Amino acid sequence: MIEASKSSGKSGIIRYGMIGGGEGAFIGDVHRKAIGLDGKAVLTAGCFSRNYENTLATGEALHLDSERLYKTYTEMAKAEGAREDGIDFVSIATPNNTHYEIAKTFLENGINVVCDKPLTTKSEEADTLTKLAAQKDLLFCVTYTYTGYPAVKHAREMVRRGDIGEIRFVNAEYPQEWLSEPVEKDPNNKQAAWRTDPKQSGIANCTGDIGSHIENLASYITGLEIESLSARLDKVVEGRVLDDNATIMVNYKGGAKGLYWASQIAIGHDNDLKIRVYGSKGAISWKQEDPNYLKVTTLDKPAQTLSRGRDAMYPRPTAVIRTPSGHPEGYFEAFATVYTTFINALAKKKAGGKLTEDDLDFPAPSAGAQGIKFIEKCVESSEKGSAWIKF
Amino acid sequence: MIEASKSSGKSGIIRYGMIGGGEGAFIGDVHRKAIGLDGKAVLTAGCFSRNYENTLATGEALHLDSERLYKTYTEMAKAEGAREDGIDFVSIATPNNTHYEIAKTFLENGINVVCDKPLTTKSEEADTLTKLAAQKDLLFCVTYTYTGYPAVKHAREMVRRGDIGEIRFVNAEYPQEWLSEPVEKDPNNKQAAWRTDPKQSGIANCTGDIGSHIENLASYITGLEIESLSARLDKVVEGRVLDDNATIMVNYKGGAKGLYWASQIAIGHDNDLKIRVYGSKGAISWKQEDPNYLKVTTLDKPAQTLSRGRDAMYPRPTAVIRTPSGHPEGYFEAFATVYTTFINALAKKKAGGKLTEDDLDFPAPSAGAQGIKFIEKCVESSEKGSAWIKF
Amino acid sequence: MIEASKSSGKSGIIRYGMIGGGEGAFIGDVHRKAIGLDGKAVLTAGCFSRNYENTLATGEALHLDSERLYKTYTEMAKAEGAREDGIDFVSIATPNNTHYEIAKTFLENGINVVCDKPLTTKSEEADTLTKLAAQKDLLFCVTYTYTGYPAVKHAREMVRRGDIGEIRFVNAEYPQEWLSEPVEKDPNNKQAAWRTDPKQSGIANCTGDIGSHIENLASYITGLEIESLSARLDKVVEGRVLDDNATIMVNYKGGAKGLYWASQIAIGHDNDLKIRVYGSKGAISWKQEDPNYLKVTTLDKPAQTLSRGRDAMYPRPTAVIRTPSGHPEGYFEAFATVYTTFINALAKKKAGGKLTEDDLDFPAPSAGAQGIKFIEKCVESSEKGSAWIKF
Amino acid sequence: MIEASKSSGKSGIIRYGMIGGGEGAFIGDVHRKAIGLDGKAVLTAGCFSRNYENTLATGEALHLDSERLYKTYTEMAKAEGAREDGIDFVSIATPNNTHYEIAKTFLENGINVVCDKPLTTKSEEADTLTKLAAQKDLLFCVTYTYTGYPAVKHAREMVRRGDIGEIRFVNAEYPQEWLSEPVEKDPNNKQAAWRTDPKQSGIANCTGDIGSHIENLASYITGLEIESLSARLDKVVEGRVLDDNATIMVNYKGGAKGLYWASQIAIGHDNDLKIRVYGSKGAISWKQEDPNYLKVTTLDKPAQTLSRGRDAMYPRPTAVIRTPSGHPEGYFEAFATVYTTFINALAKKKAGGKLTEDDLDFPAPSAGAQGIKFIEKCVESSEKGSAWIKF
Repeated sequence: MIEASKSSGKSGIIRYGMIGGGEGAFIGDVHRKAIGLDGKAVLTAGCFSRNYENTLATGEALHLDSERLYKTYTEMAKAEGAREDGIDFVSIATPNNTHYEIAKTFLENGINVVCDKPLTTKSEEADTLTKLAAQKDLLFCVTYTYTGYPAVKHAREMVRRGDIGEIRFVNAEYPQEWLSEPVEKDPNNKQAAWRTDPKQSGIANCTGDIGSHIENLASYITGLEIESLSARLDKVVEGRVLDDNATIMVNYKGGAKGLYWASQIAIGHDNDLKIRVYGSKGAISWKQEDPNYLKVTTLDKPAQTLSRGRDAMYPRPTAVIRTPSGHPEGYFEAFATVYTTFINALAKKKAGGKLTEDDLDFPAPSAGAQGIKFIEKCVESSEKGSAWIKF
Repeated sequence: MIEASKSSGKSGIIRYGMIGGGEGAFIGDVHRKAIGLDGKAVLTAGCFSRNYENTLATGEALHLDSERLYKTYTEMAKAEGAREDGIDFVSIATPNNTHYEIAKTFLENGINVVCDKPLTTKSEEADTLTKLAAQKDLLFCVTYTYTGYPAVKHAREMVRRGDIGEIRFVNAEYPQEWLSEPVEKDPNNKQAAWRTDPKQSGIANCTGDIGSHIENLASYITGLEIESLSARLDKVVEGRVLDDNATIMVNYKGGAKGLYWASQIAIGHDNDLKIRVYGSKGAISWKQEDPNYLKVTTLDKPAQTLSRGRDAMYPRPTAVIRTPSGHPEGYFEAFATVYTTFINALAKKKAGGKLTEDDLDFPAPSAGAQGIKFIEKCVESSEKGSAWIKF
Repeated sequence: MIEASKSSGKSGIIRYGMIGGGEGAFIGDVHRKAIGLDGKAVLTAGCFSRNYENTLATGEALHLDSERLYKTYTEMAKAEGAREDGIDFVSIATPNNTHYEIAKTFLENGINVVCDKPLTTKSEEADTLTKLAAQKDLLFCVTYTYTGYPAVKHAREMVRRGDIGEIRFVNAEYPQEWLSEPVEKDPNNKQAAWRTDPKQSGIANCTGDIGSHIENLASYITGLEIESLSARLDKVVEGRVLDDNATIMVNYKGGAKGLYWASQIAIGHDNDLKIRVYGSKGAISWKQEDPNYLKVTTLDKPAQTLSRGRDAMYPRPTAVIRTPSGHPEGYFEAFATVYTTFINALAKKKAGGKLTEDDLDFPAPSAGAQGIKFIEKCVESSEKGSAWIKF
Repeated sequence: MIEASKSSGKSGIIRYGMIGGGEGAFIGDVHRKAIGLDGKAVLTAGCFSRNYENTLATGEALHLDSERLYKTYTEMAKAEGAREDGIDFVSIATPNNTHYEIAKTFLENGINVVCDKPLTTKSEEADTLTKLAAQKDLLFCVTYTYTGYPAVKHAREMVRRGDIGEIRFVNAEYPQEWLSEPVEKDPNNKQAAWRTDPKQSGIANCTGDIGSHIENLASYITGLEIESLSARLDKVVEGRVLDDNATIMVNYKGGAKGLYWASQIAIGHDNDLKIRVYGSKGAISWKQEDPNYLKVTTLDKPAQTLSRGRDAMYPRPTAVIRTPSGHPEGYFEAFATVYTTFINALAKKKAGGKLTEDDLDFPAPSAGAQGIKFIEKCVESSEKGSAWIKF
């Protein structure tokens, strides 16, 4: 959508590079499509694989200039950091255990970062990245996709403005079925293999992969901070070393309570993230698989189903709506909103603008760090017989 | 529907009496309507209130013979137990803390009993009733209504026959909104007043009133026995002495896990009992507010929605269906099925028949006893900081 | 629930008799259960079958006095009409083509009538019954069950009070699947056999059996009168003489338009009656298979889902609610409401009371007559190539 | 995503231009986003407005080369047709009454065309375009978006393969609420103004704008051809010259029947296109507002809900899926699938490949022509009192 090569001198164009996302990978393409939807940034450089042949082939298929295709991310970070028309940000779509080093390298070379979640495998690393980005005055985004949905943003605003009163209870769940059987033994199922392998996935599987989405979404919508938690992590399918089902009781600061359930063995559920927030005056309910609607009930009125695009929403959610009501927006649009918010902030910053809270409405590295900490505390609690662990 | 008075000598007629259910009461009328639907038993005697005037007025409105209206339940138990045409069973629809004495009295007088839930306020009492009924060879039924739905019975059969494999996880919830505000302070809301009053309600409110339904339903469908549990009982609305929200993690014997949530402060939920059972081959989901359907998903097929009356169900659920598919059966029909199963068993027993497992498919006092124990263990765990308590 | 035989002298007891509903029949038992639910009338007499043996067996099973079991309905009408403690009303649950003669006979003997729908097979007959009931000052009810649902009554009140403005368009449908195959060829499927047989079913099958429910429901809720209609009646399954699928365009007096679809070959639908009414200010939608909810949308608010028992409804619907919200009421309860309204009116009339519009909120014979006329006009239009026929 | 300017010599790059879609327009941006999602073509030229200033501003915002920004579409067609690196196709996103001339001009200059729907305002013009594209051996696509959904493609395949038997009845509806009030009188509502204005919209409004989508979708899924139709077009809101509500009975060749309802005054509906197809063995149901699921019911099985990405679908629908199940795809993805199919076909054709039926699975100009004819026949029927009109 944007012709980058000839516009090196032009202001306003945002260029990005990608680490990972070569042929055979999945999530890198999702990142590219999400950016492509709004067309606000142009892919200019890449190190798509540890295999240079793959990088070259992917780059050619994407019509990239061969001089912007790199053998290593380190080389790329240095070269792009040094170019006048270098990339404005890098998008990291590699396995989790590599995020930290790659993100650090780009930050050190003065390049803004978008990183897939979970941010790192240890909370100290996440904290380091948070600090480094701040030090270098660089923007950093963790792609917690679900915060990009307009209905989620409206839920957040409703809570903030007290529309449902004081929050009392949060019930969030994220059931999936894809690990109901030991599919990691199928040599073709690499996704299952690395998810269930502690060497690649870290200390948790289910709690890390999807439990962290629950934590992030609950935190984003309610603003509540966890004070302590009690977790039971189950290894349901025989032979698993890491959890594939997790139940977590949460106490928030201020007295509200929460209950989270994440599962990869819940047959009948695809990607069924759902959150219900109960306040003293009303409640809201949102379901990722039906994301254009928000159910709102207050004590004095019949249950309402808000339709994105039809019913009045607050300014921030309204700002990220692309289609009229009844024209469903889905996963790519939410992903694109995370990216476009980041890219717009970047463009504004480059142009010397001052970033507002709304400009920065994308998941910061501190949110990523909190996610890692959540995982660590859940594992600790479960190992101690679901003992309550301070956060 | 049945003319009882003139048929004193006839075999086949089942007569019943009622304790409670006078003017101004609610649940007694529900019991009468439920029995009236199938018309298999005729109300013949009553002590509808501690206030004899009320009993007389209620009895007259119900066209009962005045000689069968009693001042006390003790008097009634003795008199009816002694009559040749005495009642076959008594239906107890009084406040919880009176169930034990009343039930015991009727059993001692040789009269079969149907008792509202929870059976008693202490598990020892429940055990006593269980034993007494057995000793006396009398039938005893606790009206856990939700086991009366055909879809619930089909779910139970599916689990028993291994249709969804080995059970791994149970997620059951029962959110309501009616105690979201301190309505017990409203002098007209007697229901709220006694529910939240430990003197009348015992050691628990939410866990006792609706948590026990979860326990019973999960047990009925899965046959799983609780090995240990960890509970967090919340007093959400300021000033409450008893719980109005409860989260319970359960470990079953054999390794399956469960998660229960009961709430009376969940705005937007009427009486939203829902259970999801996940096995190694498939899962089932049922929702009390939409009771004619059962969602069944196995790994090899698209999600199926079984419609009661349309889709093949096992013999036991099929036997309790009254209308063709698409003609909704609801709460009264489920209630009536509990009663009619009991009444049919009674009639068969009177006629000298041998009762099969299907004949006895109504909640036994042992189920009632288990419910009381569940409440006690939840309270104990919560008081000990959600410690795991052996069952 | 009521002991009738000994209360012959008592005022306040309502006695009824039944024609049809012997062993092997279906709908008669539904009528009895519906009456039994509220227990406001007691079955006292019957001619349950043309086969006297069947009548005797059915009567005995129902514990009726043998002297109130009759060989013919004529005999019964005369005898009961003459008794001091004779039945107050008769319930007619026989095949359609017999309704007229039976109803007429009972009216002539001074006995009030409840008759299954469709009322007759010719509109002249229906008109005759309407007039005769008026002449004799007797109450007459046609059991259009679906008008008994509280949500339907609330919809009617909303329209009457202008809550959704002036009505513009009505879209009502009633798809079923049960005649998708030529099941009438199965000798065990008597229901299918007589429905598809013009000798027993009259000039229409689908339009008569379920199309008439659409007409009645639309008329009940909106109060609109049909000015003209254009119908296409299809005989989809090979070999059928009568319609099994029907599409009808309707013009109402005053300018509103309607669209009706009835089908018995719509695979995937059980008994899926649904009505949507669009006004100038809002719209309402109701579905018989989910009858406890009413969807209401106005232009200025998000879509609302009213829950029966939770959300404020007008006095008339509120008066017929039996259970708190979330405790589903279904088909029997709607049926019982039709009956209980009729029985209450009868009792009040016997007691000398003056009947109000609310007392008379059960389907009158004029509604039954209108249903027959509707069927006749549809058949006429279809035979004339969907020509517009004046009503 | 693609750097076009420097790759003039490269094969494989697809360049496109756009007519319309300048600042202040809506649908042009939708087209660009849809193309951007998959990133298979790059915007290279444009005449975005009749106002050249607007074109220049839009072009600059999109980082286009100024020499590829044109004052008129005629100029652009000639210039781009003559360039070696000229655009491969043009995307037409202008008001309906201009489509014909623009499309014709580009075809005459040897440029492939994608045109918004409805294709033209007269069926003769549509036929001319169909013939011209064939003569010139150019690809031509009409953006009937809804055919791009995977579930729609699976429905089509199911019908073709006989999975639901012989088609008997089609019920399709497309209710919207946005013209429930005379919003065309609001000077800011240009969309409403031109839709309801016969000078700009042609002979029909509702039937043209959304009725044509019904016709296209029903035709795409079932393959049935209309033999005759009877239509009633209503002008519900006072003062309207064109229809805002339409009911259409359809007879298909071969004996199946259909019923279509389109409305812009149906309060409570956003963009609620829904189609139900009933066959002799089963039925399918699909709803645009919940597009990732397909409900399939056959007589021998419980109702099934197919989840896109989870449940087995045929090769063609499977080929257009972008995300795993439970990650909702919506309107943009469907739109992108129409475009990407077209672009892939173009690329294959350029590379000398032979196009298969699957390659050509995008709406052809003949489908566009059929849509125009449908509108004309509906208007004719309605004007003749819903007379049956041969197709």
